[in-house]
Amino acid sequence: MNEFELIRRYFARPAQRAVLGVGDDAAILRPAADCDLHVSVDMLVQGRHFFADVAPRALGHKTLAVNLSDMAAMGAAPRWVVLSLALPAADEAWIAGFAQGFFELAERYGVDVVGGDTTRGPLTLSVTVGGETPRGQALRRAAARPGDDIWVSGELGLGAMAVRSRLGKIAPLPDGLREAAWRKLEYPEPRIALGQALLPLAHAAADVSDGLLSDLGHIAAASHVAAEVWADALPSHPQAEAARGQWLDCLAAGGDDYELVFTAPAERRTQIEACAATAGCRLSRIGRVVAGQGVSLLDGAGTIIKLGSIGYDHFN
Amino acid sequence: MNEFELIRRYFARPAQRAVLGVGDDAAILRPAADCDLHVSVDMLVQGRHFFADVAPRALGHKTLAVNLSDMAAMGAAPRWVVLSLALPAADEAWIAGFAQGFFELAERYGVDVVGGDTTRGPLTLSVTVGGETPRGQALRRAAARPGDDIWVSGELGLGAMAVRSRLGKIAPLPDGLREAAWRKLEYPEPRIALGQALLPLAHAAADVSDGLLSDLGHIAAASHVAAEVWADALPSHPQAEAARGQWLDCLAAGGDDYELVFTAPAERRTQIEACAATAGCRLSRIGRVVAGQGVSLLDGAGTIIKLGSIGYDHFN
Repeated sequence: MNEFELIRRYFARPAQRAVLGVGDDAAILRPAADCDLHVSVDMLVQGRHFFADVAPRALGHKTLAVNLSDMAAMGAAPRWVVLSLALPAADEAWIAGFAQGFFELAERYGVDVVGGDTTRGPLTLSVTVGGETPRGQALRRAAARPGDDIWVSGELGLGAMAVRSRLGKIAPLPDGLREAAWRKLEYPEPRIALGQALLPLAHAAADVSDGLLSDLGHIAAASHVAAEVWADALPSHPQAEAARGQWLDCLAAGGDDYELVFTAPAERRTQIEACAATAGCRLSRIGRVVAGQGVSLLDGAGTIIKLGSIGYDHFN
Repeated sequence: MNEFELIRRYFARPAQRAVLGVGDDAAILRPAADCDLHVSVDMLVQGRHFFADVAPRALGHKTLAVNLSDMAAMGAAPRWVVLSLALPAADEAWIAGFAQGFFELAERYGVDVVGGDTTRGPLTLSVTVGGETPRGQALRRAAARPGDDIWVSGELGLGAMAVRSRLGKIAPLPDGLREAAWRKLEYPEPRIALGQALLPLAHAAADVSDGLLSDLGHIAAASHVAAEVWADALPSHPQAEAARGQWLDCLAAGGDDYELVFTAPAERRTQIEACAATAGCRLSRIGRVVAGQGVSLLDGAGTIIKLGSIGYDHFN
């Protein structure tokens, strides 16, 4: 099958909301009049964002999930995506698996695939996602205020544990932890419901993709505030609890978490704790916003902990 | 400089229309309430869509131009883009040149760069563009009707002549034609003004990126009609006129034209001819829509001409 046939066969599914989806020079969408539109893009490159032997279904899931995670961080409902793919070959089985993982997640959140471009080249995937919030209500990075609590969803460090064990940088993970780490790396779950539940509660939010301290640092810089993070409060997998010190770098700076870090006034603690149940994920209060600048990781005595790395930068 | 600094320095320019541009998990946009939103994506890969030694400024221009051309084909006003870049190295001079070409064109059309993603990898560029038309008025491929005239803008075949001469597949081009061909290949001009002028006049439209017959074929298929194209009417550069037969494959099927092919009722010929002046480009009536299916290229006697190739398919 040629390019156009492959695209048509696996990606041209009827759009649920779009006026016109795949198949013209551009899609036709009709955003709700009382909403803001949010747009974000993430690109994934083989050997940098995923291993060459990743299952195509897992890659399809993750390619969409990392983009939906950006919508979650705005508190937005994702609506549509466009996908550009450079593929080394027109491999139908690979494309079918990729499309399966991609659409399983897209359909779960009612996201239309409204356009795309496929070409031959080194395996590279780029997704642009569009979503909506009620006008003026999005969760911005610049909205943190001194006195805010800092919260994070889920468990941190699992994706980084999977990557590091696969690369032989750490010892093999025990059963249970290994499965959880690989599940997190390959099938991260974007916190869509949580993001929307936080719209009336949180001040600032970001998704944790480069590592907690790095992404929280973006909130602090945009808000002109400082953040204190309590190392002992960082949520970890139960099997990593016994040796927290060993995993601290993964928890605080590992990346590939796709959790939400957010700030909120202290008087909303009860309401935020209630979100954990409705959104189906653990929520942990991990620090506080103070005047100043930068992000500090503190031990139980309030002493600053220095880590070997903070966050993931593709060019360093 | 690292990834984030390079992006900030060259791509984080203040947005003109967007509520929030680069720098958060997603942009915030507020589309006009009485408009439809159009979204399209194009990916460019080195060695496939451009030569490895292309000037970065030319590549910046073209990367955006091919996307704006999709908006032109819908009759849409482009509003915003997001850009994902895989770069083999954090080469500041290259990025500066690329940004220069990209923003020169973006600013000419009032297009905001509202988001992006940069990673290390084989040189790959993907742009998603968003634009607007008055609600319900977009030019769709599926709207051609038997009896319509077929029109095309500008001159065809120039981009293909540049590629073929560079690859040594044809003799070196004479001065004048060579400059025009390279200008077209490297700095194509999206037909934005023309697309919008055609909104009340044309039925169906598409941009000519894969070759006239191929892109017109998409209109014919989507509209369930056939198209007859008159080979003698295809607009060529004056220096290619003397040997039209030699260039017919480039004119009809070369690709890299970024012109608009469109259909319109015969009673609008005068109005359409008037668009040529306002849109600043030549318009040529090159055929007609008839009942049936497929696209036929006809010589002066009405005999079907077979070409060696029709259109560009990356997997064949």
